[in-house]
Amino acid sequence: MKPRINFITLAVQDLEKSLTFYRDGLGLPTRGIIGSEFTDDITGASGTIAFLELHGGLMLGLYARSDLAKDASIMLGPISSTEFSLGYAVHSKEAVDHLLKHVEAVGGILTRAPHERPWGVYSGYFKDLDGHLWEVTWDPRIELRD
Amino acid sequence: MKPRINFITLAVQDLEKSLTFYRDGLGLPTRGIIGSEFTDDITGASGTIAFLELHGGLMLGLYARSDLAKDASIMLGPISSTEFSLGYAVHSKEAVDHLLKHVEAVGGILTRAPHERPWGVYSGYFKDLDGHLWEVTWDPRIELRD
Repeated sequence: MKPRINFITLAVQDLEKSLTFYRDGLGLPTRGIIGSEFTDDITGASGTIAFLELHGGLMLGLYARSDLAKDASIMLGPISSTEFSLGYAVHSKEAVDHLLKHVEAVGGILTRAPHERPWGVYSGYFKDLDGHLWEVTWDPRIELRD
Repeated sequence: MKPRINFITLAVQDLEKSLTFYRDGLGLPTRGIIGSEFTDDITGASGTIAFLELHGGLMLGLYARSDLAKDASIMLGPISSTEFSLGYAVHSKEAVDHLLKHVEAVGGILTRAPHERPWGVYSGYFKDLDGHLWEVTWDPRIELRD
């Protein structure tokens, strides 16, 4: 495998609401919901999905949890917030605080007020509408290009 | 928010085993397990983590599920495979088949033999050692740089 990931698909309960959170609340660019004309006869999965377009060609997909289960041909699992987190690095402690306040204002849930970890990272966590964790971090060792 | 993600943290049961799968089985570059000298007194989370270093500065972290729960200050959730998937795009259908065979040989579990979706993507899914889904895809509309 080449050391890359081309897309991340987040399982969501209500695609319209999640899209509103990410597009309007967090400001991520998207062409909106696509693919609703498709259903896969083999798996029963719908093609209905929204992609948030990130830097470097990375795509963050929002896809119904039930469709992800069908598309992967696995049983629908329980909702769980401790399977993964997504990390977003910013330029300062103040930027961490500021973004987390904004996230709360647009419907995210702060799980952990930011503080400085002994490993040198100042960060806090929020959950999106589906309970997916994001960590907002300031790490002086990470060089951010933007 | 800028349209980017800086890291993805996968919650794992056994950090050594998961690292072996990703480093030796899938060939992803890493500096190995770091941070084991740190414990956060505020959350109780350990700093023990391994990062797989992906293109564009994206980091794929492997972190104990219990530590992720502590670090985010949330209850440990159930294990679940339908919260998200990671997508890896390749250059041809044959490359999808080939990689999935390799993944099975090194301990991944194929959940869905590859087939062509009506939305134009040829793909199959596997689970890693912790049940995290990866979709291996060939999509003729995606331009791959490598």
